[in-house]
Amino acid sequence: MGTSGHDPERDAGSPTFSPSAELPPLPPDDLRALRRVGARWQVGDAVRALPVDPQSGEVRSGPAGTADRAGMLFLPDGPGRLTATPIAERQDTAEGRAVGVLRRVLLGRPLASASILRERMPKLVALPVLASDLLSSVAYGPEAMLTVLVLAGSGALGLSLPIAAALVLLMIAVGTSYRQTVYAYPHGAGSYLVASDSLGPRAGLAAAAGLVLDYVLTVSVSVSAGVAAVTSALPGLGPYRVPLALAVIGVLLTGNLRGIRAAGHVFAAPTYLFLAAVLGLIAVGVARSAAGGFTVVAAPPTPAVEGLGLLVVLRAFASGATSMTGIEAVSNAVPVFRPTEWRNARTVLTWMVGILIVLFAGLTLLIHLNGLVPRADQTLLSQLARLTFPTGPWYAIIQAATALVLLFAANTAFNDLPRLLYFMARDGYVPRRFLHLGDRLALSNGLLALAVAAGVILVAFGGRTHSLIPLYAVGVFLAFTLSQTGMVNHWRHRRQPGWRRRATVNAVGAALSAVVLVTAAITKFTAGAWVVVLAVPLLIYLFRRVRRHYDHVEQTLGLHPVTTGRGGPEPAADEPPAVVPQQVRHLFLVPVARLNQAALRTLAYVGSLGQPALALHISPEQEEADRFRAQWTTWGDHIPLETILSPHRVVIQPLAGYASALRLHHPDLTLTVVVPDVVVDHPWQRLLHYRTEQRLRRALRRHPGIVVSSMPTHLTR
Amino acid sequence: MGTSGHDPERDAGSPTFSPSAELPPLPPDDLRALRRVGARWQVGDAVRALPVDPQSGEVRSGPAGTADRAGMLFLPDGPGRLTATPIAERQDTAEGRAVGVLRRVLLGRPLASASILRERMPKLVALPVLASDLLSSVAYGPEAMLTVLVLAGSGALGLSLPIAAALVLLMIAVGTSYRQTVYAYPHGAGSYLVASDSLGPRAGLAAAAGLVLDYVLTVSVSVSAGVAAVTSALPGLGPYRVPLALAVIGVLLTGNLRGIRAAGHVFAAPTYLFLAAVLGLIAVGVARSAAGGFTVVAAPPTPAVEGLGLLVVLRAFASGATSMTGIEAVSNAVPVFRPTEWRNARTVLTWMVGILIVLFAGLTLLIHLNGLVPRADQTLLSQLARLTFPTGPWYAIIQAATALVLLFAANTAFNDLPRLLYFMARDGYVPRRFLHLGDRLALSNGLLALAVAAGVILVAFGGRTHSLIPLYAVGVFLAFTLSQTGMVNHWRHRRQPGWRRRATVNAVGAALSAVVLVTAAITKFTAGAWVVVLAVPLLIYLFRRVRRHYDHVEQTLGLHPVTTGRGGPEPAADEPPAVVPQQVRHLFLVPVARLNQAALRTLAYVGSLGQPALALHISPEQEEADRFRAQWTTWGDHIPLETILSPHRVVIQPLAGYASALRLHHPDLTLTVVVPDVVVDHPWQRLLHYRTEQRLRRALRRHPGIVVSSMPTHLTR
Repeated sequence: MGTSGHDPERDAGSPTFSPSAELPPLPPDDLRALRRVGARWQVGDAVRALPVDPQSGEVRSGPAGTADRAGMLFLPDGPGRLTATPIAERQDTAEGRAVGVLRRVLLGRPLASASILRERMPKLVALPVLASDLLSSVAYGPEAMLTVLVLAGSGALGLSLPIAAALVLLMIAVGTSYRQTVYAYPHGAGSYLVASDSLGPRAGLAAAAGLVLDYVLTVSVSVSAGVAAVTSALPGLGPYRVPLALAVIGVLLTGNLRGIRAAGHVFAAPTYLFLAAVLGLIAVGVARSAAGGFTVVAAPPTPAVEGLGLLVVLRAFASGATSMTGIEAVSNAVPVFRPTEWRNARTVLTWMVGILIVLFAGLTLLIHLNGLVPRADQTLLSQLARLTFPTGPWYAIIQAATALVLLFAANTAFNDLPRLLYFMARDGYVPRRFLHLGDRLALSNGLLALAVAAGVILVAFGGRTHSLIPLYAVGVFLAFTLSQTGMVNHWRHRRQPGWRRRATVNAVGAALSAVVLVTAAITKFTAGAWVVVLAVPLLIYLFRRVRRHYDHVEQTLGLHPVTTGRGGPEPAADEPPAVVPQQVRHLFLVPVARLNQAALRTLAYVGSLGQPALALHISPEQEEADRFRAQWTTWGDHIPLETILSPHRVVIQPLAGYASALRLHHPDLTLTVVVPDVVVDHPWQRLLHYRTEQRLRRALRRHPGIVVSSMPTHLTR
Repeated sequence: MGTSGHDPERDAGSPTFSPSAELPPLPPDDLRALRRVGARWQVGDAVRALPVDPQSGEVRSGPAGTADRAGMLFLPDGPGRLTATPIAERQDTAEGRAVGVLRRVLLGRPLASASILRERMPKLVALPVLASDLLSSVAYGPEAMLTVLVLAGSGALGLSLPIAAALVLLMIAVGTSYRQTVYAYPHGAGSYLVASDSLGPRAGLAAAAGLVLDYVLTVSVSVSAGVAAVTSALPGLGPYRVPLALAVIGVLLTGNLRGIRAAGHVFAAPTYLFLAAVLGLIAVGVARSAAGGFTVVAAPPTPAVEGLGLLVVLRAFASGATSMTGIEAVSNAVPVFRPTEWRNARTVLTWMVGILIVLFAGLTLLIHLNGLVPRADQTLLSQLARLTFPTGPWYAIIQAATALVLLFAANTAFNDLPRLLYFMARDGYVPRRFLHLGDRLALSNGLLALAVAAGVILVAFGGRTHSLIPLYAVGVFLAFTLSQTGMVNHWRHRRQPGWRRRATVNAVGAALSAVVLVTAAITKFTAGAWVVVLAVPLLIYLFRRVRRHYDHVEQTLGLHPVTTGRGGPEPAADEPPAVVPQQVRHLFLVPVARLNQAALRTLAYVGSLGQPALALHISPEQEEADRFRAQWTTWGDHIPLETILSPHRVVIQPLAGYASALRLHHPDLTLTVVVPDVVVDHPWQRLLHYRTEQRLRRALRRHPGIVVSSMPTHLTR
């Protein structure tokens, strides 16, 4: 494994998070098209004759603005350049201000884009943040394995040691594989990026679908399990299980919205406490067992309900493999490490896998030595802790730490899912708003989406952990399998020194992961895995639909219309239509219901533009039309008027129909419908008005070439 | 009572329903202001140089339009006049068309405004439509009276005859009073109009509040009582009580939306059936009693739980008075009668009160003669029917007719409340949309509001009749009292021949109604009347708030700004501001996020108007701003560009802040913000776009003098 520093080749296509990801540079084709279009523009000098100087202080200051900087909304930053001050970011309604204050209290002051590089984690902070999911799995992994084995009678429990050994090998294989991934993809994104890169976009989407489900389930399962641990200790809280779990999700969301470093500090303590508690438990347990000469206590005899066959062994193996959920975390999160990122990430990954193996093997061994079997009323970890520490506060500490670490395990998903969505959004498979960096530089939309999805699942399943567990392993091992298969391809294509060894390591990992995936999908299908088996293709379909939409947007809005085969350098037929002002022919339409101030202001506005204009009036009956015409004449008939009798008293459709019929027969015209709009003070007052403006806008929005504009008249006192 | 034909004086201020009520004529002041403003207009000839002939066939036809009339959206109707055909009224989206077909199936084809006069009812159709509420009340009125009396022991039941006699007097008094009202107010509106007219607007609003509550409760109570009668007969339907009741409300709503004549035909049969059944019951009962020499059967002895005092007698009187709910119906509905409306209405009112007295007195007498007492398991009407017709189908017919008429009693409210709301809307106390005549010339919005309110109450009370009954009498007797007190004032002011006699009749009615009102409010306060006692002032407050809003709108939008004391004929300072084009100074702002087709089309649109324009670009970081400037230069820098660095990646607020700061310091400028807007095909695709257009519109809507416009670019394939 080369440690020869940074390899620039490995950077291609995967920059780190950037606020500009939402506004990427134009490709050269577009720039050429832009220049061609611009060369044909013809506009009068009036357009450039601004009636104001946008750089002058008075333009840049708000209501309270004097000449001092404190009142300024914008600071000058060179000709034609301004920088918005926090004042310009404030919402100026009472509700907006209240929301702003709440955000500042919950999230802290916003961070500027320029401070993005500082938000990195040292290794000892990254470890608890990224490891809590992986390490907390040992609280249920060994138990899940033994619960299957005991179905074949207590005699089968002896198989736990060889199966655990196989799982340790799997952990080493997968861990080594991800070490290679971290090195090969120093900018993160894990399985999605690896599978897309090496196996093609479909495999990448499959891996992404598996991971998305897994992250959402991680939050739901960990939070509900953690809350269940708390409510077991304090049964009085039992009825508030679901609200408590939602509150925990809310705390996690807030912590992560504040930004990753703050989140790391919050979550470090419980993970280290759990680590210390379980390591202590193992040390004391092994020491006692050593004092007794490592004699194995016989397990209480349990009748077999199934024969001991390959299926039982495989199910036990698949169930025990849930101990590995979360191993992916580091490879997704490489960019949160301090430079050199990939090197630090690899170190933490090695630590994590090492600790996992010690915890998993130690706990499995102690359980075997003490002859413990799964019981309905107490977890194995709890039995072991009670046996090892019959007196003193240690039992309580271990249980509390377990509960806490389970709650914080959910945090791994809050770290990883938004990142995954960011990379997918950059490729156009999920909404682009997942690219947006929140005011604390966190990927706020991804965090919110995760919290909502996990909350919905939690409420739908009533906060019951056991109904969610079977859904859990399929997604993650799908991602493992695809990612490691992808790595095999990666090495094969590159043929760097030592590629055969690396490819072999990844191939072993891929094969073992595939076995777990197939076993889990088949043996747990009826228990809930079918949900995931259905959801994965559904998600892939949705990702592709989203991508298709963005491709269509790109085609429609792009400056270089797709050349149909010919591909000449400047084909005139491919020129974007109607993007130069001299081509635009105007007709303004003004719907007028009654002649009041709002209507007269709108008519004056339209009249002042010096373009052809036509007023429209809808009458419910002939005599009203006559009356309105008389008023129009009184006013002076300055703009041509068309009255439309609508005998069934419909208003919006005839107006929209008139405009669209006009436009249909004169596609060269650009119609602008300017609607007088009365703006009320309070939302309830909207009930008192017809809201023609909004309804007409909705009706006309479907029609191309019709610009809808509204001239507001305000009722504010 | 004069029958000398139509008195034009009585018409003042109360025209019948008109589709033009939404667009009333301008007062002379406004016309003068209009002429003054128009005289100052100066616009170029370009404004009148239309690029199309709006009267030409091609402009008026839709996509399928050829030269034949069938494809035409509009038919020419003289110069500058068109008439919309049904094609122009169609919504052109798939959903819109589906809704249109559903409307046609449920409601029938729309009726033109010109056919409004034909929608009148002959007397024999009006009787059942307007009387079902009043007449169905006898199904529970006598029982309510006896239920109170029996509290003082069976000995007190003998008082039912004198109390019934007092109630008959009350009925005659109130009926006579309303005969006078129908004559005095031939265009309807009953208590609200009478009380407003003679006692002032506050009294009118109090009467209106009482009536609004009463109508809504009539629907809830009658429908739930009717459904309860059905479910008693068919207990299997019991669990579906609330959905059944909502379905009945839906049927009533649909029937009434179809138009009043159709509604009359639907509802005539059950009312006549009920009338025949109860009259038959009384005739047979009296005949049998006469055969037995009118001997009184002694009531079974019942222990007294209260002493017989004035309070018990008053409560019995107030409870019995619920038999009179609905007597108001005719006076509200005078305009639905055929001409001469007031004369026909008065005749029907006389019939109704006559029938009510016969039914009420007959039933009370028979109950007394047969010694019946209220029982929990069977209504008195049911007991009486079973006693009178021990065999044969008659008992079942009477019960079925009672159930049906109760269901249809709700229809009276559907006839009256929309009318009341129409008159209130004309005065500006409720939203003006209650003025709108639906496509079948029904007051659709009032009908919908009633159905929704009654449905909500019905669901809230779980369809239980008995919890609603105590709320019932207070509102209606409040309206009776105010209306009749108003009539006393009416006669006193006019002093026509016979005014003393008329005033006395009304004064007696008012005094008796007031006694019932006070008694009902006090004795039923804790049982639920408090809801009404609180709701009446609340409604009055809301009516006044709405009126205040409309007054404010009138002041702001009116063409004659309120002259501050001076009141000279043409004061220059009072001239409406900025309503002539030569005063308008333009600056166009174009927010551009990226340079694509949508942005270039928007820039071309703005450039072609020949007005000063400024483009704005929000950058999340400096390098993005530099990149965008370079693209702008490549394009040719045809419009001045201002880049705004928003270090916290906020977009909408800095844009809105820039526009409003500009406008604040240059109040003479009219800013037009033209936003490039991408219009998607399907609603789900909106999730994939930032919707800057809508968010910016919302943020800028609060600021006066800023016109927000959007240039749509469509993604349709």
